[in-house]
Amino acid sequence: MYECSLERMTDKITTFSKFGDAGHGGITRYTLSPEDIEARQEFQKRMEAIGAIIEVDDVANMYATLPGSDPNAKRIVMASHSDSVMNGGNYDGILGVMSAMEVLETVADQKIEHKHPLTAMIWTNEEGSLYPPAMMVSGIVCYDYLPDAIKEKFKYEDMMKSVSMVDGEDTFGAALERSGYKGDKKYRLCPDNYKAMFEVHIEQGPILEDAGNSVGVVDCVKGMFNYRFHFYGQTVHAGTFPMPKRQDALFAASQTICYLHEEIDKLGYSDLVYTTGEIVCHPNIHTCVPDHVDFCIDVRHEDHGVLDQVLAIVKSCAGKEWAGCRCEVKKMWNRDTVYFDEELFGYCKEAAAETGYKWQVLHSGAGHDAQFANYVLPSTMLFVQSKDGFSHCEPEYSTPEHCTEGATIMLNAVLKADKA
Amino acid sequence: MYECSLERMTDKITTFSKFGDAGHGGITRYTLSPEDIEARQEFQKRMEAIGAIIEVDDVANMYATLPGSDPNAKRIVMASHSDSVMNGGNYDGILGVMSAMEVLETVADQKIEHKHPLTAMIWTNEEGSLYPPAMMVSGIVCYDYLPDAIKEKFKYEDMMKSVSMVDGEDTFGAALERSGYKGDKKYRLCPDNYKAMFEVHIEQGPILEDAGNSVGVVDCVKGMFNYRFHFYGQTVHAGTFPMPKRQDALFAASQTICYLHEEIDKLGYSDLVYTTGEIVCHPNIHTCVPDHVDFCIDVRHEDHGVLDQVLAIVKSCAGKEWAGCRCEVKKMWNRDTVYFDEELFGYCKEAAAETGYKWQVLHSGAGHDAQFANYVLPSTMLFVQSKDGFSHCEPEYSTPEHCTEGATIMLNAVLKADKA
Repeated sequence: MYECSLERMTDKITTFSKFGDAGHGGITRYTLSPEDIEARQEFQKRMEAIGAIIEVDDVANMYATLPGSDPNAKRIVMASHSDSVMNGGNYDGILGVMSAMEVLETVADQKIEHKHPLTAMIWTNEEGSLYPPAMMVSGIVCYDYLPDAIKEKFKYEDMMKSVSMVDGEDTFGAALERSGYKGDKKYRLCPDNYKAMFEVHIEQGPILEDAGNSVGVVDCVKGMFNYRFHFYGQTVHAGTFPMPKRQDALFAASQTICYLHEEIDKLGYSDLVYTTGEIVCHPNIHTCVPDHVDFCIDVRHEDHGVLDQVLAIVKSCAGKEWAGCRCEVKKMWNRDTVYFDEELFGYCKEAAAETGYKWQVLHSGAGHDAQFANYVLPSTMLFVQSKDGFSHCEPEYSTPEHCTEGATIMLNAVLKADKA
Repeated sequence: MYECSLERMTDKITTFSKFGDAGHGGITRYTLSPEDIEARQEFQKRMEAIGAIIEVDDVANMYATLPGSDPNAKRIVMASHSDSVMNGGNYDGILGVMSAMEVLETVADQKIEHKHPLTAMIWTNEEGSLYPPAMMVSGIVCYDYLPDAIKEKFKYEDMMKSVSMVDGEDTFGAALERSGYKGDKKYRLCPDNYKAMFEVHIEQGPILEDAGNSVGVVDCVKGMFNYRFHFYGQTVHAGTFPMPKRQDALFAASQTICYLHEEIDKLGYSDLVYTTGEIVCHPNIHTCVPDHVDFCIDVRHEDHGVLDQVLAIVKSCAGKEWAGCRCEVKKMWNRDTVYFDEELFGYCKEAAAETGYKWQVLHSGAGHDAQFANYVLPSTMLFVQSKDGFSHCEPEYSTPEHCTEGATIMLNAVLKADKA
C-alpha cells in the first residue's frame, strides 16, 4: 500500500482555510466569488507544479489530470466542490478536492505507476448557497442520465437564470461569464472519457466519532421524501374568543409534530432520521389565534419499505381533525436510495482494511455530487470523521490525521480500480 | 325610556362602510389616512347639522358637543375610534362613534332635556395598525393617570416618532402634521371638564350570540400577562444526524405547547383564555434541525389568583429539558384587571333592563380606549353582538337592530348619569 502525506495535507488545509476566512474559524466561500477563485487558482498552481494538465468546462468545473501509461485508457476522477455555505467550515467539499490533490501529489512524488489518467476535479456550486439549487452543476453535467423527476429541476437554461440570494440583479449565468471560468463544454465529465469517480467528504454526522472510526466507506445515499403539512383554522381575538370554540392551527401543528415523533419512534428503526425543520405561522401575531400553519417533514432511510411505513403515518394525519383544524398533507419530492458502484465500494473496503485504519461501512444521509455522477459512470464515496458531527457551521472540524487517512484509502482504492 | 332610530343607524353604517371600502365587504382605514379623514369629515358634517360644537385636540381627537342646561356642568362623553386594521370590518371602533352620534342625534331630534353637555368623540389611532402601538392616543391623553409600567410605553415624544409599518420614512408625528387635524392641546379630555365616558364596541367574541343576547354590559377589562418561551438546541443536518442525539428546538416548542394546553385545561376555568399566536423558528430550513425556537403565550382572566395559577405552570416549563433543549421563560408584560366605574355600570344595567332587550353582564378580553380613560374619569362600556365572534377581519358583522339597541341603552344610561 501507498501512504499520503500528513504534512502536505496539513499544509493544504491551512492554505485553503484562508480563502474566504470569516475571521472566527470558518469560511464563507460562495461559488465563483473572489474567494472561490483564490481557491481555484491555488488548485491550479499546485496541480501544474506536479505536471497535471488543467481543463475547465463550460460550467466552470476544473479538471487536473496526470496522464497514465495507456494513452487510450479512460480517466479515473476524484472530485468534490470548493464552495461553502455562509459561515461554513473548512472541510465540507474542499476536503474532497484536497484529498484528490493529495492523491495526485503522492502519485507524482512516489512515481506510482498507473495505466489510467488520474484526474482531480472541482465541481462548481454544489452548495447552491448563493445561486440555488444545491448540486446545481452536477445536475447540469449529469442531466441526460438523471431520472425524469430529478432532471426537470436542473435544466441548463433555468440554472443560468438562478438569481443570487444576496443581489436580485445577479444570476448564476452572469457569475459564470464574469468569473473567467467559463471553459469548453467538450471537457465535461462523461462516460466516454471517464471510467470511475471517487469522492471523499466529511461525514457531517457523529456516527464515526461515536464508533471510534476515522473513515466510513459509503455504500449508498439514503432514499428520502419530503411532505408538507397544512393546517386550516380560524383567526380570532386572543382575548375574546372562548377556548372550546377555537380552531388553533399552531396548536394543531404542535400536536401533529408530537404525534409524528410518537408514532414514527414506535417503528423502532434506529437508523431512520426525520426532521421538521421549517414552520410558517399566519398571521403570527401574539394577540391572534393562528388560522394557517404549515410545516414540512424530511424523512430518510435506505430501505424503501421503511420509508413507506413512515409515509403511511404521515398520510394518516390528513384524515384527522387537529385542534378543530383541517389538515392537508402534500408531497413535495422524494428520491430512491442511490447505491454506489459495488466494485468501487469493494476496492474502498479492501483498501481500508489493508491500511489498518479504523473504518466502517456507512450510508450517506446527505446528497452529494457523486450521487448524480453515479448515474453517469461508476462512483463511490468515503467519509472522514466529523468532530461532534457538526457541519455547515464554523465549528466543523476533522483532524489532519483523519483527513490524510481518507486520502490514503482513496489512493489505494483508485490504484485497485486502475488495475481492474 | 328613549329610543334611537334604526333607520338613522342603518344609514350611518352604510355611509361609514364606504370610507376605506376594500371591495370585498370590509375596510382598510388607517388612522389619519385619506379614508379616515373622509370618515372624520362625515362625523363633523352630521354633528354640525344638529348644532354640535366641534373641537379637535393636538393629537387629532375630535369632540362634537351639544350644550346642556347647566353651563357649569362637566361633559359626559361617548367615544370610540374611526381607524381600522388592514382588511378589517365595518364595526370595530366606528360602531362606538356612530352610537355616540346616534345618541346626540336622538337627543337633538327628540329635544331630550339634559343638564350636562353631551359629547360624541373620535379617538385617534386606537388600532395602531400603521403606527404602533395600539391605543396610542388614549395612552398619550391619559398618560399622567396611567400606572408607571404602562405609561412608559406612551411617551408623547416616542409616539410622534412611531414609524409607519408601510413606509419607513413616515412617522405618526408627520401624519399628524399633514392631516390638518393637529388641534389644540387645551381640548384634550380631562377630569376638570369631563364627568364620565361611555364606549359602545362590538364584542369581538361569540358569547352574546351563543347566549342569544344582543348587548353586553361590561364590568371590567380582564387582567392578562404575556410571556415568551425560548428553546435552545443545536442545528445539525437532517440527513446525517441520528435521532437520539438531537436537540430539536421545534420539537421542544411543540411538546411545550401541548403540555401548556394539558396543564392549563386541568385547572378547569371555563372563562380563562390563553393563546400561543406567534412562533419564530431558526434557521427554519427543511434540511436543518432547528436550534432556536421561541413563542409567546397571552393569558387573560378577571381573577388575579387564576392568572397566578397559570403563571406557575408557565414558569415551571423553564426548569425542564424539552427534546434535549434548554428552555427559558421571560415576562414581556402584564396588566391587572381594570374594573369600570360601578355607578356607570349600574346605569347601563338599569337602562338595559328597562329596554326589554336581551342582555347580560360581560368581561372584556380585549383592550379599549375606555380602559385608559377609566384611570382619568369614571368610564364604562357596552358590547354589541358579533356574528360568529369574528373581528379584525372583513366578515365582521353586527345587525343594524343590535347596533341600534346598543345605542339606545347607552342613551338611557347617559341620561341617568346626567341626572345623578
